[in-house]
Amino acid sequence: MAEPLTHLNERGEAHIVDIGDKDETRRVAVAQAELNATSEIVAAILQGGLKKGDAVAVARVAGIMAAKKTSELIPLCHPIPITKIAIDIAEGKSRDIIVVQARVETTGRTGVEMEALTAASVAALTLYDMAKALDKSMTITNVALLEKSGGKSGDFTRGA
Amino acid sequence: MAEPLTHLNERGEAHIVDIGDKDETRRVAVAQAELNATSEIVAAILQGGLKKGDAVAVARVAGIMAAKKTSELIPLCHPIPITKIAIDIAEGKSRDIIVVQARVETTGRTGVEMEALTAASVAALTLYDMAKALDKSMTITNVALLEKSGGKSGDFTRGA
Amino acid sequence: MAEPLTHLNERGEAHIVDIGDKDETRRVAVAQAELNATSEIVAAILQGGLKKGDAVAVARVAGIMAAKKTSELIPLCHPIPITKIAIDIAEGKSRDIIVVQARVETTGRTGVEMEALTAASVAALTLYDMAKALDKSMTITNVALLEKSGGKSGDFTRGA
Amino acid sequence: MAEPLTHLNERGEAHIVDIGDKDETRRVAVAQAELNATSEIVAAILQGGLKKGDAVAVARVAGIMAAKKTSELIPLCHPIPITKIAIDIAEGKSRDIIVVQARVETTGRTGVEMEALTAASVAALTLYDMAKALDKSMTITNVALLEKSGGKSGDFTRGA
Amino acid sequence: MAEPLTHLNERGEAHIVDIGDKDETRRVAVAQAELNATSEIVAAILQGGLKKGDAVAVARVAGIMAAKKTSELIPLCHPIPITKIAIDIAEGKSRDIIVVQARVETTGRTGVEMEALTAASVAALTLYDMAKALDKSMTITNVALLEKSGGKSGDFTRGA
Amino acid sequence: MAEPLTHLNERGEAHIVDIGDKDETRRVAVAQAELNATSEIVAAILQGGLKKGDAVAVARVAGIMAAKKTSELIPLCHPIPITKIAIDIAEGKSRDIIVVQARVETTGRTGVEMEALTAASVAALTLYDMAKALDKSMTITNVALLEKSGGKSGDFTRGA
Repeated sequence: MAEPLTHLNERGEAHIVDIGDKDETRRVAVAQAELNATSEIVAAILQGGLKKGDAVAVARVAGIMAAKKTSELIPLCHPIPITKIAIDIAEGKSRDIIVVQARVETTGRTGVEMEALTAASVAALTLYDMAKALDKSMTITNVALLEKSGGKSGDFTRGA
Repeated sequence: MAEPLTHLNERGEAHIVDIGDKDETRRVAVAQAELNATSEIVAAILQGGLKKGDAVAVARVAGIMAAKKTSELIPLCHPIPITKIAIDIAEGKSRDIIVVQARVETTGRTGVEMEALTAASVAALTLYDMAKALDKSMTITNVALLEKSGGKSGDFTRGA
Repeated sequence: MAEPLTHLNERGEAHIVDIGDKDETRRVAVAQAELNATSEIVAAILQGGLKKGDAVAVARVAGIMAAKKTSELIPLCHPIPITKIAIDIAEGKSRDIIVVQARVETTGRTGVEMEALTAASVAALTLYDMAKALDKSMTITNVALLEKSGGKSGDFTRGA
Repeated sequence: MAEPLTHLNERGEAHIVDIGDKDETRRVAVAQAELNATSEIVAAILQGGLKKGDAVAVARVAGIMAAKKTSELIPLCHPIPITKIAIDIAEGKSRDIIVVQARVETTGRTGVEMEALTAASVAALTLYDMAKALDKSMTITNVALLEKSGGKSGDFTRGA
Repeated sequence: MAEPLTHLNERGEAHIVDIGDKDETRRVAVAQAELNATSEIVAAILQGGLKKGDAVAVARVAGIMAAKKTSELIPLCHPIPITKIAIDIAEGKSRDIIVVQARVETTGRTGVEMEALTAASVAALTLYDMAKALDKSMTITNVALLEKSGGKSGDFTRGA
Repeated sequence: MAEPLTHLNERGEAHIVDIGDKDETRRVAVAQAELNATSEIVAAILQGGLKKGDAVAVARVAGIMAAKKTSELIPLCHPIPITKIAIDIAEGKSRDIIVVQARVETTGRTGVEMEALTAASVAALTLYDMAKALDKSMTITNVALLEKSGGKSGDFTRGA
């Protein structure tokens, strides 16, 4: 028998769990998403040259704004007073991958894992949108929480 | 030299491209996202038993509502009059994978690829949210456009 | 055995039903909501005197803006290009009742019943909000569709 | 002469009242809304049988998400850091009534009465939406605050 | 060489700056915007007569609601728990000018300057919208911060 | 006696005017806003050098996204299917001024003047936000409609 999901009550009904008794502490989460494309598209987006276009900035803004919308998108997320958002977009391990990394912080009663994951996902979707006229077969993979600290449930660091 | 991105003008500046001259036609897009978890979590979410909880319905609603929010999330997307949204959530090829499939339709001037991809992504993120107290190392992968029809740019079907 | 709900498919799963084949026609809906309060509160809100305050205008604006948000609030509603919204707020049959009446029109593929009902409900909730420091026992009743025209399903007028 | 509304200043102009000096305390509100339908529709929604559909879950999610949107809908409401939301949907006193009950909590500077009322109203409107193809003459009634605790203005319990 | 913008990091990338270590203190901001129109339009909006219409109330509500949306509009703004909003709309120095003044307060970790400026701007745009059928050559000018207090960066009062 | 405002009915009550009988035609609007700052801040934002930062791109994205939110911000605006948005940000007539120019197009039943004005205003407010740590005395001026075409009311071009 599977362990029950905390976001459903004993009758299986969804609710927003009570965090009223949790402390307001500093909490950090870092998440990533990868866009798998062709090396030509990665170059078109990241353009090392002098005439850098808006592509990366647009995706970064999209991720930042999505982090602030997380509780509107994920039904059982609490609204959280985010205190910091930073999004890094760079070439991945190979030249046909772009890695989006989102770091979100709060001083609040619950963590910001979903904010970081949502920011990374939406930034990657925004890159897909801008390049989809060139190639519709790109994929987004490895959407994952990299680390998390603060709060009673302890720290988390993703294994290598 | 990489081919230029259509969403940036000749100076590299982002804009919402002109679709005023495009026809209003029926357009369909189907996209997917996969949640990689443990077989226990997949079972807790999908629960074949009689006492099915809200988990899958919550993710489905989240995906449907996210499709309607796409143009608020992806900066260079046009607002589109969506005419249909359906989201299917089921066990994947192996017992530790859940596949979310989103189908979106419109009768409009541009396609609904981003709406389908956003719906699938947000539904998968919602599943992650509900199960993250059990396991923070789940990942979302294979976020991809499966097929697309309608519009001048022709049909697309993802290769096997 | 109850007739099935159209917004659930044959497996009971929620979806946004396909309206792609429906015609774009003029559609109208009128709905109401009543606030039951004390005659003092009704007077404070409606104030027949010269120095009319903002209360009714605030509720009217709230209703108008809520009509435009309907597809964000009601998960299975289609986004609809509203072409007209009017909200009337007046004393009801007795002096302790305020009646909110909302009329919404569109030229679109589906009706605006939910837009009218949402507008009337939110305007009434806004009146409640402004008067709740005086009396928390007010109620909102008779939230109902009064009439509806346009579209294939035919016209509807609420019985007396 | 009616007592003035607190949400209007001495010139009758709407404002968001100052809560900067109020304490952050635990506050709870419970509200309800009733959908009056036919016993067939109530059965179609609540379906006691094995093959429970998404209808109740969709309405519950709609109510939860609406609670979080309250300050966007009700113009003079403060944004509030909600710490818990639970929505119960069940058959009422007779078989043609569904009762929605919403409980909202916060640790904040003002109460969550409007959040609970908005959640209950939107959940009931969502039920109406899903059943309206069967019957447009359903009504929503008895939208009311049941109880409220926390804050300087004291507790409130609705009379029987 | 220009001093660097705080909202961009050392590589010129936008981020939401860290306010996690800042204290929660009372912060106030007052901003204005002016609508330059004709004296006829100013009179039509402000109407000194008995039959005052909704125009000013609509603009006031628009400004109040926009203040609450600031962090959704201005990408690098933090979400802030606003504790008070008041908007004053009156004739300016000459009879062809309407002055909108917005006062916003919070008890939070960062200031509310952008909330006050956004509220004043959107209220002025709303006045423009209501009068634009009469005159499209109106302008909005002198959108400015008038004063600001609270927080480590010190108080600010605009010079005469 | 001033000519009545079209957005208020004969009783002075706000409404969204009926556009159901208007034709769907191509409509264009161009608007501007100016940020008055110091030449140092203008340089910091526009930076002619090689290492261009995100500042202009952030403001451009903010303007584009605000155009799409216009009907949520301006209470009596209709929701409009925008078909194109472009925002140009450049040095003004003197070195201490930045001019934001927004062009919006639709094929719809009403014009996009408010969308263009809102986009220009929010882009200018975003520039203010990013530079306000350097100087709080910047102002936004000359928010104005430059030209408008399409629709029954005829074309408009701002006088020199």
